[in-house]
Amino acid sequence: RINGQRLWDSLMELAQIGATAKGGVKRLALTDLDKQGRDLVVRWGREAGMSITVDQIGNVFMRREGTNNALPPVMTGSHIDTQPTGGKFDGNYGVLAGLEVVRTLNDLNIRTEAPIEVAFWTNEEGSRFVPVMMGSGVFCGAFTLETAYAARDTEGKSVGEELARIGYKGEQVPGDHPIGAYFETHIEQGPVLEDADKVIGVVPAVMGLSWYDCVVKGMEAHAGPTPMGLRKDALQVATRIMQQVVAIADRYPPYGRGTVGMVQVFPNSRNVIPGEVKFSIDLRNVNDELLNTMHEEMLAYIEQTRKDTGLEISIERVSYYPPCPFHPDCVDAVRKATAKLGYSTMDVVSGAGHDAIYTARLAPSGMIFVPCKDGISHNEIEDAKAEHLEAGCNVLLHAMLERARV
Amino acid sequence: RINGQRLWDSLMELAQIGATAKGGVKRLALTDLDKQGRDLVVRWGREAGMSITVDQIGNVFMRREGTNNALPPVMTGSHIDTQPTGGKFDGNYGVLAGLEVVRTLNDLNIRTEAPIEVAFWTNEEGSRFVPVMMGSGVFCGAFTLETAYAARDTEGKSVGEELARIGYKGEQVPGDHPIGAYFETHIEQGPVLEDADKVIGVVPAVMGLSWYDCVVKGMEAHAGPTPMGLRKDALQVATRIMQQVVAIADRYPPYGRGTVGMVQVFPNSRNVIPGEVKFSIDLRNVNDELLNTMHEEMLAYIEQTRKDTGLEISIERVSYYPPCPFHPDCVDAVRKATAKLGYSTMDVVSGAGHDAIYTARLAPSGMIFVPCKDGISHNEIEDAKAEHLEAGCNVLLHAMLERARV
Ligand SMILES: NC(=O)NCCC(=O)O
Ligand SMILES: NC(=O)NCCC(=O)O
Repeated sequence: RINGQRLWDSLMELAQIGATAKGGVKRLALTDLDKQGRDLVVRWGREAGMSITVDQIGNVFMRREGTNNALPPVMTGSHIDTQPTGGKFDGNYGVLAGLEVVRTLNDLNIRTEAPIEVAFWTNEEGSRFVPVMMGSGVFCGAFTLETAYAARDTEGKSVGEELARIGYKGEQVPGDHPIGAYFETHIEQGPVLEDADKVIGVVPAVMGLSWYDCVVKGMEAHAGPTPMGLRKDALQVATRIMQQVVAIADRYPPYGRGTVGMVQVFPNSRNVIPGEVKFSIDLRNVNDELLNTMHEEMLAYIEQTRKDTGLEISIERVSYYPPCPFHPDCVDAVRKATAKLGYSTMDVVSGAGHDAIYTARLAPSGMIFVPCKDGISHNEIEDAKAEHLEAGCNVLLHAMLERARV
Repeated sequence: RINGQRLWDSLMELAQIGATAKGGVKRLALTDLDKQGRDLVVRWGREAGMSITVDQIGNVFMRREGTNNALPPVMTGSHIDTQPTGGKFDGNYGVLAGLEVVRTLNDLNIRTEAPIEVAFWTNEEGSRFVPVMMGSGVFCGAFTLETAYAARDTEGKSVGEELARIGYKGEQVPGDHPIGAYFETHIEQGPVLEDADKVIGVVPAVMGLSWYDCVVKGMEAHAGPTPMGLRKDALQVATRIMQQVVAIADRYPPYGRGTVGMVQVFPNSRNVIPGEVKFSIDLRNVNDELLNTMHEEMLAYIEQTRKDTGLEISIERVSYYPPCPFHPDCVDAVRKATAKLGYSTMDVVSGAGHDAIYTARLAPSGMIFVPCKDGISHNEIEDAKAEHLEAGCNVLLHAMLERARV
């Protein structure tokens, strides 16, 4: 069993770097604070006897040798960058749970056959630089190193420059690094476990997602003198589509999701009929066929609305990740470890993307969820119970040991 | 008959001050450009033999003496401040039509019994400082000089300071200035005249308006992991209310108006369910009883939505102007002048507020509308035909002469 207090203390110490007044953490990717966080975790890794490798996109691999180092490592990890109003656990928990596994193996003098590695991936959050899950994305070849280096923040600073500046532009070619299996522990970032009062979520798969930008163009006009019948009100037409996004998701339970999160109205003046409305659409499902059906229904509704209203409506898909089922062996390893340890459990499909969806393209991968308070994440009030974090870390320990063999 | 070419030339010359690339004008109240515009109009007034009075809120009155100066003046006017993306005609036309009337009387050596005055009112647009129609509002006692002086722009500059800075903080106490009758010519700012192919709109009344701020509070959560049934999506609930605003207006034709022009979504991120949505509501009607019914229906719908969804919804009325019927004598004077001149005409209720709704509290008032292209105003592409502007000015001349007596 791992040391829950030590895990908690490390989480709290790392959370000091970029701590916010409301109890959260602001430690954006490749900032000075990110460097401080990286340096601390790397120091802890060294103190636990691990060797450090950094690749060209700044992914860090901390390695504990096995008895047969020809075997590919059993890896765990996550990320330590945060949202601008982020919490203490998102990502950080996955990295420090890996560190705690190694510290525990050291305490108990356990040697594994395969090496163990703890990774942290660069810029998972995608808040400062897009695309999201950048480090693992480059690692698995989803996009090139050049694309990633060229990404710029709102101040015009690039990933390439910032990596070099903070001293984490490594030598190793991304992906030139074998993985035997990959496990990632993470807070659920949703309310399902807490609602069902379960401690461990076994994650069979991550939902696929489609992101869109939709623009409705009407005609700007004065709110007073323009009769209702002569209006081309872009907002009124946009609200129909916004409601349809949810209606479509509701038609495909239990895993259909539909969200409009971002809206911009032009000119956004109290007494001007909106001439243009731009908004985002986020559709998700764990089944790719159903996700595609949702996509088609969305396009059909927009086509019909175009005909009904005569307004110009454009829709563009800006991101697509197919659903990612995890490897049966890894899912089973998590399930068996949970049963052995006697924790209450249920399957929870991940609604959020994680670095594990990229590692899954290269090696058997799996995830372990623990509850977070009120299902809230990407928020400074994000919270989790020490006993749940400890349980998740114990499951990680046993799942990794099964794959790495003692 | 007035000189249409001279009127047009003056409009084009004034529109040079603050001219924008897209052919509009940006000349916000109490800026250096407003000072330049004011100085030019005052110079033209002096050249036309008028004396100038400025009151403490910066309203400017240009006076041509009558043969019986004990009579209160017959006044016309409007404003020369513009929207940030304003046009050449909104307001400016009303002021320069008044100037053209005086120039014409001078040309023809006509003396009126009552004096004639041409006014321009401070900060009608309300873009830089609220409340709107500030100069005429202080003049008629709708709010105090102190309230107006204390209004600040987004940079923190106050009306009091800015008036003094540009040299238009006059001596006269606002309202301490008699008015016998007031006429205001204006572009319609709506499509009705153009649609009906009429030249002159006789304005029997201005619609009343109610402005509201509505805030829906839900619960911010991650768009992926949060099941549809566990969401408190503030935007989805807000869109229902937004649609109801239009539905309510549609129930009270032909003068019911309902508009949501301004929307802010928090945190406004693609993969976060909106936790809060703030939006404006603008309801109008020419009948105060119907406007009140619309108000009640709005509140009832929000109360019902609160019950149906369990979300916190607040609604606050931020402005209310009752409908303003114009004085029968002034409406008749416009109608008779139009008939005498042989212009095609119809009655057009004004959907927009104007300085004339405040003067109407002190003296018989009336308005004359001319068509504007596609009904578009508050837009750099605002446009009007020289022949229509000329016709409106001729109607103004004859209506004023009827009241001022030759
Ligand atoms: N974990 C996470 O928030 N990933 C970002 C992509 C998503 O919205 O799922
Ligand atoms: N003319 C004008 O735009 N007035 C502002 C108040 C309103 O929206 O009617």
